[in-house]
Amino acid sequence: MENKKITAEIIAVGTEILLGNIVNTNAAYIAAKLPELGIACFYQSVVGDNAERLEGAIRQALSRSDVVILSGGLGPTEDDLTKETACKVAGSEMYCHEESKERLIAYFEKRGLTLTENNMKQVMMPKGGVVLTNNNGTAPGVIIPYENKHIVLLPGPPGELKPMFEESVVPYLKKLTPGVILSQTVKVCSVGESMAETMIADLIDAQDNPSIATYAKTGEVHIRVTAYAEDEARAEKLIKPVVWELKNRFGSNVYTTKEDVSLEAAVVELLKSGDLKLMTVESCTGGMVASRIVNVPGASEVFKCGLVTYSNKAKRKLAGVKKSTIEKYSAVSRETAYEMVKAPEVWPKADIVIGVTGYASPCEDETKTGLVYISCNACGKITVKEFRFSGNRQKVRESATAQALILARQCILEALSEKAFG
Amino acid sequence: MENKKITAEIIAVGTEILLGNIVNTNAAYIAAKLPELGIACFYQSVVGDNAERLEGAIRQALSRSDVVILSGGLGPTEDDLTKETACKVAGSEMYCHEESKERLIAYFEKRGLTLTENNMKQVMMPKGGVVLTNNNGTAPGVIIPYENKHIVLLPGPPGELKPMFEESVVPYLKKLTPGVILSQTVKVCSVGESMAETMIADLIDAQDNPSIATYAKTGEVHIRVTAYAEDEARAEKLIKPVVWELKNRFGSNVYTTKEDVSLEAAVVELLKSGDLKLMTVESCTGGMVASRIVNVPGASEVFKCGLVTYSNKAKRKLAGVKKSTIEKYSAVSRETAYEMVKAPEVWPKADIVIGVTGYASPCEDETKTGLVYISCNACGKITVKEFRFSGNRQKVRESATAQALILARQCILEALSEKAFG
Repeated sequence: MENKKITAEIIAVGTEILLGNIVNTNAAYIAAKLPELGIACFYQSVVGDNAERLEGAIRQALSRSDVVILSGGLGPTEDDLTKETACKVAGSEMYCHEESKERLIAYFEKRGLTLTENNMKQVMMPKGGVVLTNNNGTAPGVIIPYENKHIVLLPGPPGELKPMFEESVVPYLKKLTPGVILSQTVKVCSVGESMAETMIADLIDAQDNPSIATYAKTGEVHIRVTAYAEDEARAEKLIKPVVWELKNRFGSNVYTTKEDVSLEAAVVELLKSGDLKLMTVESCTGGMVASRIVNVPGASEVFKCGLVTYSNKAKRKLAGVKKSTIEKYSAVSRETAYEMVKAPEVWPKADIVIGVTGYASPCEDETKTGLVYISCNACGKITVKEFRFSGNRQKVRESATAQALILARQCILEALSEKAFG
Repeated sequence: MENKKITAEIIAVGTEILLGNIVNTNAAYIAAKLPELGIACFYQSVVGDNAERLEGAIRQALSRSDVVILSGGLGPTEDDLTKETACKVAGSEMYCHEESKERLIAYFEKRGLTLTENNMKQVMMPKGGVVLTNNNGTAPGVIIPYENKHIVLLPGPPGELKPMFEESVVPYLKKLTPGVILSQTVKVCSVGESMAETMIADLIDAQDNPSIATYAKTGEVHIRVTAYAEDEARAEKLIKPVVWELKNRFGSNVYTTKEDVSLEAAVVELLKSGDLKLMTVESCTGGMVASRIVNVPGASEVFKCGLVTYSNKAKRKLAGVKKSTIEKYSAVSRETAYEMVKAPEVWPKADIVIGVTGYASPCEDETKTGLVYISCNACGKITVKEFRFSGNRQKVRESATAQALILARQCILEALSEKAFG
């Protein structure tokens, strides 16, 4: 690629974001779209409804980026300053945009509302600007070309911003960019982030195009491979060998190479492929494992039921753990975890049973804090693993849930392979 | 209060935020905390894992704000540059912080993991910095005082950042601000945000000190009353009458006025007070209700067990729903919800049984998408409520979980009052 990459910058305008009343999801939305358009984004920022600071932010952004995308501050009130400030920076005069005015009048008439003087502020547009129709609200957007750069103004409500971006901004930006950016994610479990980076240090060091980045998730590492090329086919050709190499290095620990497949979805997929039914028996995770499974659409095909056996009595009465086992080894022990999945006393017998028992909260005996046993009965073969997690109650439970899914996946893979070759 | 207000600025570091892979919830979290500390925040920004741009961002922030709070980039990999860059800007030398090193070694030993050379990067600290212990991960935070300003470095994962901010950063920042800011939160359920705002519009209009802000949570509204005064006693005196008035207006819909009490903790508290035992029978929520209950320390005293009866067969075999009921009314119906809590066929009989059944994913029959029935059997008296939730699968399930806890709370309150007066 010869052309210099176009850069963009996102500025969210609004005191409610500065005060933390609203999470800045618009920035995440726009940011995720830009790489797909071959546009690099190095900065995001947030400023309040303050003319001086907003002007400073726009000038700084124009000094270092080709495209400046602003969201918010296009409303009818005095607080809404974005358009006026951008026009001041670009030196653009404003005029009444007749088409927008007609749309606004029609919008109010349809709803039986009275148009106030304020509202007319929304249809004043900079000369030379490209007006963006708002099909979901009253504030039109506008793109102001300025000295080979582009100032894009979008309304703040996500329900207005997103469709406007798709319908009007994407086609505009596509004309500015020479190539395409494609990325693919290799999702790895059972390997920590530093270990994963060590295993691919040579690839990371040698990276250029495609680039390689790792992201740590609870119990998982996601490795994203991103390529930039003239067209999609060429970008794919760049990505393919790197993804292949990653799959080669991490072997069966790669559970998917699809962006939208979660660990639990991969487990559900495996269960479906082997026509296996799942059951969960949870103590300290208290239903989290079942909940992640149920969050997969279509889980009902493979998920028989879940038991939350938080009390010792529930472990005995529902999961069939022997009283003597709990008395001899305690409720958090390898032996209890084993019996939790051995032969649950209730309907139904599932092919795969996952069990979790542990201490999520700080214990009197400090060495036991975060101690968790996870068990899996896969077609009669029982595996029990011991873990020590850190963090608060919630975090220990989330880590245990992730490891329970990982252990289940491993045991299902083994069971399937035995079924095929055994 | 005479003193000039201290200003802070938030910089999130991470290419994954710039790429839109992660929503910047850390910024919203920190931004919401600053006003409570009497600190003003005029800028938030995001930069990638790039030394040059990060350095520029830190320098700019220091030029206009007293406190610069950075999140992310404290990990063990080469990409993690925040600490090194901040030290460069502040001119601080680094040294190996022995206490952090010991903690790190213990962390790895406890898990039976091998410490790599990379990891030692995390325990290198700037001279003169205040090291912040990380109780939930491997990266300590640090505060670097620099020319009457303060650079605060925090780890990126919210599960590490939030407790560290509470435990270490809040006390540090409190010392910088002249007065005391105190706030108390009145947590309300069963009332929507706009309804809540309408009910207290006069209080909001008249607010000055204390200030009143509402925050919408799933199924709840939190109303925060914040006062600024010379000392704690004076601040408390300002807050008290407003909290009293809010409790008066929202009556029994106020489930707590304590910051750290969640809805599920309030339910567990109520159960304890009446010596009542709880059981859950969940379909579409798939264990989420049980999981929220189990997340309350000490829940074992009141939580007997949970059933995840996602399949129709599980509803019949485990929860005792009649086959004819499901055939006649479907699995998502008032009748099925009723039978799910009527007489679960398994041990044990609990005093309070919560049931949830619904459609979390888009249905062929569009009118049924988001339809959820929630039932509660409180000491023999069964209530069933119909809900229609919007959003994706996860969001519908979260809304249903919140409403299940709210219904349980109402039914327990009624049962307790009947016990007392009936």
